[in-house]
Amino acid sequence: MSRFLSQQFASLTPYTPGEQPRDQQYVKLNTNESPFPPSPGVLRAVAEESAQLNLYCDPECTLLRQAAAELYGVEPKNVLPVNGSDEALYFTFLAFGDKTHPFAYPEISYGFYPVFAKLTHVPAREIPLKCGFTVDYEDYLGIKEHIVIANPNAPTGVCLSVSEIEQIVRANPDRVVVIDEAYIDFGGESCVPLVNKYDNLLVIQTFSKSRSLAGARLGFAVGNEELIRDLNTIKYSVNPYNVNRMTQAAGVAAIQDGAYYAANAQTIIRTRERAAKALEQLGFTVLPSKANFLFAVSGAVDGETLYRELKARGVLVRHFTKPSIQNYCRITIGTDEQMDILLSRIQEILREKGS
Amino acid sequence: MSRFLSQQFASLTPYTPGEQPRDQQYVKLNTNESPFPPSPGVLRAVAEESAQLNLYCDPECTLLRQAAAELYGVEPKNVLPVNGSDEALYFTFLAFGDKTHPFAYPEISYGFYPVFAKLTHVPAREIPLKCGFTVDYEDYLGIKEHIVIANPNAPTGVCLSVSEIEQIVRANPDRVVVIDEAYIDFGGESCVPLVNKYDNLLVIQTFSKSRSLAGARLGFAVGNEELIRDLNTIKYSVNPYNVNRMTQAAGVAAIQDGAYYAANAQTIIRTRERAAKALEQLGFTVLPSKANFLFAVSGAVDGETLYRELKARGVLVRHFTKPSIQNYCRITIGTDEQMDILLSRIQEILREKGS
Repeated sequence: MSRFLSQQFASLTPYTPGEQPRDQQYVKLNTNESPFPPSPGVLRAVAEESAQLNLYCDPECTLLRQAAAELYGVEPKNVLPVNGSDEALYFTFLAFGDKTHPFAYPEISYGFYPVFAKLTHVPAREIPLKCGFTVDYEDYLGIKEHIVIANPNAPTGVCLSVSEIEQIVRANPDRVVVIDEAYIDFGGESCVPLVNKYDNLLVIQTFSKSRSLAGARLGFAVGNEELIRDLNTIKYSVNPYNVNRMTQAAGVAAIQDGAYYAANAQTIIRTRERAAKALEQLGFTVLPSKANFLFAVSGAVDGETLYRELKARGVLVRHFTKPSIQNYCRITIGTDEQMDILLSRIQEILREKGS
Repeated sequence: MSRFLSQQFASLTPYTPGEQPRDQQYVKLNTNESPFPPSPGVLRAVAEESAQLNLYCDPECTLLRQAAAELYGVEPKNVLPVNGSDEALYFTFLAFGDKTHPFAYPEISYGFYPVFAKLTHVPAREIPLKCGFTVDYEDYLGIKEHIVIANPNAPTGVCLSVSEIEQIVRANPDRVVVIDEAYIDFGGESCVPLVNKYDNLLVIQTFSKSRSLAGARLGFAVGNEELIRDLNTIKYSVNPYNVNRMTQAAGVAAIQDGAYYAANAQTIIRTRERAAKALEQLGFTVLPSKANFLFAVSGAVDGETLYRELKARGVLVRHFTKPSIQNYCRITIGTDEQMDILLSRIQEILREKGS
């Protein structure tokens, strides 16, 4: 750090994104990207829009808000497009948290929540998971903090039901309950319909996973009109033009091409189930996943070794050093071909370890 | 606001972007966009990159940093690409400001500075301009605040020399001096070369104006390695993937196509000088501008009326309600054809007022 950095950030540890090595081509199963390219409609929309890049984008994202509102079954005033769902999460901590309004979230979850809490000086409580890495909704009833839950959770893939979420929302009427649905399109049920019923529910989604737009940076906050207005106040005080022209156009086109992405999500679910079975046959314990990844532990090789040996063989998966999950690896669901390569590399590694 | 918004933001007034009306086509001279489209190389790069939108962008912006470093005559470690230069300014207030580290900036300048100060709870002092709306560098020597100066200043267009900037930087070795060079390519001299000499200088540039990428959102902070590292810590704690794939590719291509943009800037300068003379002949006082806009006041019609009457005639300019500048309008330099329309509409308005 420089001698100028404010002391309040002297111990700030930033988020560590999944590695993006440039030394060789990997089978990249480490950052939960879609293995499928964006739809032709997205490519056309981007190309068309780029001719007007000399003009500012619409800071209100009017067309995108309309399209997203239809997709989510709400009004445009219930939707805020953002530069990736991380930005929505950041705005949420900033808007609703302060010294006397702490946040709570599962102890094992998206690694960015503690970073946002630290950055915004919001006290945070981490609630332990239950056996089987499950989030127990009863731990979140009538608590004194705002709540963030990734559902399905990451990196576990385990999912709560809408009725469990609703009980949390109903039991905390004076707290904001944020449900981070980054992975909801791979078999979970979204709680977006509840935003019309509760004024304290904020749902955050992303187009990075099921809609193949990780590189375009597009996320949404969906919630009560007043919550969205608060987030919008923050947005207009930070970066009013946060979602650029190309991304707005890509988002509208991706919504129009919904059938393409829904079919891809179904393919990913099928591949996931097949890969989970194959891993179990290789002696892994695999958590029940409703996401586009599997969280798995081998009986024969620890998580870090597996990660390292796979990387040496050209396959990237994600390993976390947190003690309670350090034996696991998080494996993104790629194409069937990519998963076959993964499985065959794992077999090699297990054979070598067994010899 | 909702009942959940943190009290610390109860009186936060967000920035007001220039209007982007959708009711009709205007001659749009209100947000300092370039009237020229992006170069063909940019369109090609965006189209090519969009095929890979399913993959995350490089959070380190490696290629873009390299290209920008060459452009600015520094090392990649001296450059941080951001999602529009507003984001660099926000990160700067956040990283270096706090209750005991206030900021100072000119009283009349970019309207976002007070918003960033308020949002980040950083005390701020506004230093009055001198006669002729000039920033007097002597007001900034040996002061107790970090400093932000837009150079050329907005909305005035008036520019300080590099030697005046250097005196400010040298006289405040324990303060960060931020020079916001959004409009530097239209006749001013950049102080980027000074970053190799002073560890307390941060220069912020944008590709929105001279490089026709307002709709792509791309800005840069250029400075000492340690200052950049601090801003990078903030970036990785807020939004590590802040600059998306398409924008990174557009930025690299725009740097490669530098000759195209340099020629456009020269055209804009010529048009500006012609328009300034024409306005003076119509009885306006026009500040000497080194930017892609003119700040002008009519002897016959006040600023708000002129803005309103022009809008009714299909021409948008920007009007500010701050008392000391409310008689002025800020007029973006468009094409010669657009400026001819503006001038003829002004003549109409003056004729009507005179009758």
